[in-house]
Amino acid sequence: MAPVKQSSVDVLIIGAGPAGLMMAAWMAKCGISTRIVDKRSTKVFNGQADGLQCRTLEIMDSLGFGHRAWRESNHILEFCMWNPDEAGLLRRGDRMADTVPGLSRFQQAVLQQGRIERFFLDEIESCSDIRVERAVMPTSLEIDEAAVDDPQAYPITVALRHLTEEEATPAQVASATKDGLYRSNLAKDDTEDLLAASKLNEKANTEEVVRAKYVLGSDGAHSWTRKQIGLALEGESTDYIWGVLDIVPITDFPDIRMRCAIHSANAGSIMIIPRENKLVRVYVQLTKTVKTGDEAGSRADRSNISPESILAEAQKILAPYTISYKTLDWWTAYQIGQRVGTQFSVHERVFLAGDAVHTHSPKAGQGMNVSMQDTFNLGWKVASVVKGQANRSILKTYQSERRKVAQDLIAFDHKFSRLFSGRPARDETDTEGIKMSDFKSTLEDNNLFVSGTKVNYGASTIVAKTGDAAAQGDGTDVSAGAEDVRLVSKEALAPGLTVGMRIPSFKVLSQADVRPWHLHELLPSNGRWRVLVFPGNVQKPEQAAQLSAVAQDFDASRSFVSRFTPADGPVDAVFEIFAVHKAQRTAVTIFDFPPVFRRLSETDGYDYDKIFVDDNSYHEEHGDIYKECSISEQGCIVVLRPDQHVSYIGPLNEPAAVTQFFSGFMIEQAK
Amino acid sequence: MAPVKQSSVDVLIIGAGPAGLMMAAWMAKCGISTRIVDKRSTKVFNGQADGLQCRTLEIMDSLGFGHRAWRESNHILEFCMWNPDEAGLLRRGDRMADTVPGLSRFQQAVLQQGRIERFFLDEIESCSDIRVERAVMPTSLEIDEAAVDDPQAYPITVALRHLTEEEATPAQVASATKDGLYRSNLAKDDTEDLLAASKLNEKANTEEVVRAKYVLGSDGAHSWTRKQIGLALEGESTDYIWGVLDIVPITDFPDIRMRCAIHSANAGSIMIIPRENKLVRVYVQLTKTVKTGDEAGSRADRSNISPESILAEAQKILAPYTISYKTLDWWTAYQIGQRVGTQFSVHERVFLAGDAVHTHSPKAGQGMNVSMQDTFNLGWKVASVVKGQANRSILKTYQSERRKVAQDLIAFDHKFSRLFSGRPARDETDTEGIKMSDFKSTLEDNNLFVSGTKVNYGASTIVAKTGDAAAQGDGTDVSAGAEDVRLVSKEALAPGLTVGMRIPSFKVLSQADVRPWHLHELLPSNGRWRVLVFPGNVQKPEQAAQLSAVAQDFDASRSFVSRFTPADGPVDAVFEIFAVHKAQRTAVTIFDFPPVFRRLSETDGYDYDKIFVDDNSYHEEHGDIYKECSISEQGCIVVLRPDQHVSYIGPLNEPAAVTQFFSGFMIEQAK
Repeated sequence: MAPVKQSSVDVLIIGAGPAGLMMAAWMAKCGISTRIVDKRSTKVFNGQADGLQCRTLEIMDSLGFGHRAWRESNHILEFCMWNPDEAGLLRRGDRMADTVPGLSRFQQAVLQQGRIERFFLDEIESCSDIRVERAVMPTSLEIDEAAVDDPQAYPITVALRHLTEEEATPAQVASATKDGLYRSNLAKDDTEDLLAASKLNEKANTEEVVRAKYVLGSDGAHSWTRKQIGLALEGESTDYIWGVLDIVPITDFPDIRMRCAIHSANAGSIMIIPRENKLVRVYVQLTKTVKTGDEAGSRADRSNISPESILAEAQKILAPYTISYKTLDWWTAYQIGQRVGTQFSVHERVFLAGDAVHTHSPKAGQGMNVSMQDTFNLGWKVASVVKGQANRSILKTYQSERRKVAQDLIAFDHKFSRLFSGRPARDETDTEGIKMSDFKSTLEDNNLFVSGTKVNYGASTIVAKTGDAAAQGDGTDVSAGAEDVRLVSKEALAPGLTVGMRIPSFKVLSQADVRPWHLHELLPSNGRWRVLVFPGNVQKPEQAAQLSAVAQDFDASRSFVSRFTPADGPVDAVFEIFAVHKAQRTAVTIFDFPPVFRRLSETDGYDYDKIFVDDNSYHEEHGDIYKECSISEQGCIVVLRPDQHVSYIGPLNEPAAVTQFFSGFMIEQAK
Repeated sequence: MAPVKQSSVDVLIIGAGPAGLMMAAWMAKCGISTRIVDKRSTKVFNGQADGLQCRTLEIMDSLGFGHRAWRESNHILEFCMWNPDEAGLLRRGDRMADTVPGLSRFQQAVLQQGRIERFFLDEIESCSDIRVERAVMPTSLEIDEAAVDDPQAYPITVALRHLTEEEATPAQVASATKDGLYRSNLAKDDTEDLLAASKLNEKANTEEVVRAKYVLGSDGAHSWTRKQIGLALEGESTDYIWGVLDIVPITDFPDIRMRCAIHSANAGSIMIIPRENKLVRVYVQLTKTVKTGDEAGSRADRSNISPESILAEAQKILAPYTISYKTLDWWTAYQIGQRVGTQFSVHERVFLAGDAVHTHSPKAGQGMNVSMQDTFNLGWKVASVVKGQANRSILKTYQSERRKVAQDLIAFDHKFSRLFSGRPARDETDTEGIKMSDFKSTLEDNNLFVSGTKVNYGASTIVAKTGDAAAQGDGTDVSAGAEDVRLVSKEALAPGLTVGMRIPSFKVLSQADVRPWHLHELLPSNGRWRVLVFPGNVQKPEQAAQLSAVAQDFDASRSFVSRFTPADGPVDAVFEIFAVHKAQRTAVTIFDFPPVFRRLSETDGYDYDKIFVDDNSYHEEHGDIYKECSISEQGCIVVLRPDQHVSYIGPLNEPAAVTQFFSGFMIEQAK
């Protein structure tokens, strides 16, 4: 046998689903040496998670492919609630916007996971050498605990086995609709099978050993990585069992192209999700499925469930409307349960994300979104630590920020699932039934939550706000240290922004060429921090003077720009500095702004892309960012993390606070 | 020598620039057997035409790649006019929107021709087997005049020679900036050189003979095709000579990222076109260039012209502002002239398009746009004749419609060039100078013209309006026949629409899923005619009754749908029928509309994509299409050509007029 190949890499990603691909995308954008492996030999599955919440679309846009998802997806605009009238007959009880208007420039959309993975793969390929290595399975993982605190160390050792094509091709691929329970949470995990198969055929395989600085386990609900590091999920299963059909429906139900929640009087509930290419996903409550055991949480009996049986239930619920199909794209069934990981990492060296640390019901369309958002949170942090820009301390915020989100999600799903699966109340006296008004108000309360735009990260070294850091997260200590050195934002300067939340997006005009840009378009995901200076009306001498003082501070050798930017790279390699003013556009030019906002390059002339104005455009609306964000006349300085979340809001006349903020976790660079 | 290969094809396109590629795109969309050849072995050139007018972007969007052009291009929003003040010092005299607001959902944009050709090639590849055959040059073209009126005949015989790589690679490719005059209109045409080279090396080449039903010559200003069919250009040259630099400028001129017209007091004029990737195109008037002869229209002396000499002139004009560069992407120089072809086709079998039939100065950014619009007009007509849907008579409208546009363009360019190249008037008494107010009003008048959205095709068999068909075009007789059988629109039913012009686009909501669509998004370029029924408020019984009568007429066996649609294809293969109503959206469902608007398929269920409503959306504005198009309460029927131009407007209570209209040129299909 040939000697085992040995190599090292900064980041090793196990599992190339959406969470793993999001991590790989960050590494590609930030130029981090990375490998990503997946035990399966094929990418595409029909069906699977496919809701895209508006924050997910914003994130995809920041990565360069939001427009592809937006263009190909089916947009969901209206949520219709159907329930029995007093005579027990199904009727449309109410309707509302599916995404709260004004929340985002995107709305909820639906597209199959295969396309989303394709966008990630294309983007990663276009900007890096990272390629997904398929049919590669890890077989052992060891951590050298003595080395975990050394930023230069490669403390994790993973053995990888290259599978044969036969081992790595799931039986389901050849005929996707034959066994819909494959990859359902009722199906048996196939990891052990694959491992056994690879052992049987040892000589045909090759094995290698990889040493890594960081490992991500984004390997699904049955996570192999999670088992290796000894972490567990906590939570429970319910008795609610649902079937799912992806069909091209033939129906006289008038709202089949709307998102619908349908509660029948006695036959159970349906959720309808209209999809791309004439497909509709129909979630059907299976009221008659027998479970395999008596105790709560025992598994359902699979043998009863088929597309035909799911359709038959759907037909009963939807009566007097009819529904049938000739085209079935995919089907599955699942038992609702909610579980969340006890920890999201060990030693901030091996991280878990996505289904590996939280499972719940798919009906809120949250699974893929929250999974991708996990690694969207983690990726830039790991990259900045690997690049020697930031201390390892910031890595603790991954668990404090994302485990809190997972806990909130589980709580939401618990409530929502019960309201969805319950029988509607017949009248005011029917206290066992679900009141439709409760269902609607839960929906309304949570439309903000599920959009992903209202995630609010707690106080930490990288979120300068008041309150207890541990209490605002999942309990992890991510505080900035003693209260007397702690920097706290002055949120009253811009009450429309919230420190810890993603900055909302409004249109601003480029001073140099009048082009309107959504603020988010100026903030692509490339690992850079942004300092947005809002100087107000620079035609006022006092505002111009303050802007000048800010520029002088930022240009000084003691400033964050100088101290934390590597001397051998571009001046904006770590920090981009923007001005967004509200003088009359035509009264000023870029030359009325200090040079820090229009740096001169010997080869490329001035930088025309850093000064923006809040004024009327010729062809699009006035973005009104000062008004929408309630930014005061005195202006303010806003620091944004590389993931667009607000870190700090402070006054124009305290520019040195920005340097104080970054001093809390950034590493001084050699001159 | 091997026997010469012989083959036949419906359409042969000679020249794979933008005009040729547009023709190929139509053929690809319509499934027509097509070959496209180009004598050059490479696609990409730096520089070249690159302005994209808003109608061009609309057309690209209808072909499926408008979003790519829009995303990659630099958008031009403002036009600034600089001229000498009373002391002779340069100052910004005025500014205005570069594209008239409200004209289109796109605005003028700039992107290099190589990218645009790439979008065409990708789209053609994605929907057909058509591939550009490069390094292939025609050597002879013969027409069998006896067969030109037979729709089934292949009357054109073309010999094609496959060149060697060496012959087909222009010397310029290796170093684009070395000789900027390559492919300028001052440069010697290279066709003869290539032909000579191929003769020298005869045995290395292969030749083949192709018989075609139709041939397009889109082979540029020195068109080989034009010479074979004995047609000529008419017009004149001026004495104005301009240099062009594509540079990354280093300058303190504050409007370098705006489109600018700069008239200096005595040193000549500049036009500035900001481009993508920090590039700026600078058009510079060369006042000191010596011509090679004395008579008007004689050629300029090339030896004086270099990037350095053009820059030196630019520096004088722009003083006291400075301009220089380190990066020169491309350069050229040209002598302004305007010429238009005497005919655009022979026998409606061999057509010419683009530079082959019109040349003019590039500064209005019209060249590539009008060229692509030529074949956007021609392509669907040729396709519908080849498919046996329409009579050959409609092919005459290509010349009547497009030669008129070329004549208008030449007249515009003549006026604009003189105003641009003239010295600005010093004061009111300086009658020899150009008044800046005249320059601005010419610009304003013509901003509509250059946008391409105001092209208005004259009366013909396919444009049902009043007036003299020959007088409204270029003189060609394209009348519908005797006045008593002629169908004339009732334009008063929708004064916001103009028969002969492209329909403007406003947002409408899909009745089935509330999604807002721009009307143009519903009209992709696939060769289909559209019948838009505007029934007004269908909650009113009289409007509902009229809609029902329209549907009944369209469904009858005597109707255009039944008579002119092939029996073996989809029911909407030739005609798509839409309803755009203005009842309250939530008061109706698709089942309140007649079946012709929601056809039922046995496999795919109902068609949810044909009924739209003019009502509020949740997240985007109210499109207000009835108001914007001034559509009366009584409603109307609008027939659109496959190129989005309005053919006919008539009342709801005359549905049979639609069949009368199509009877004028469509061919009865076998049942």
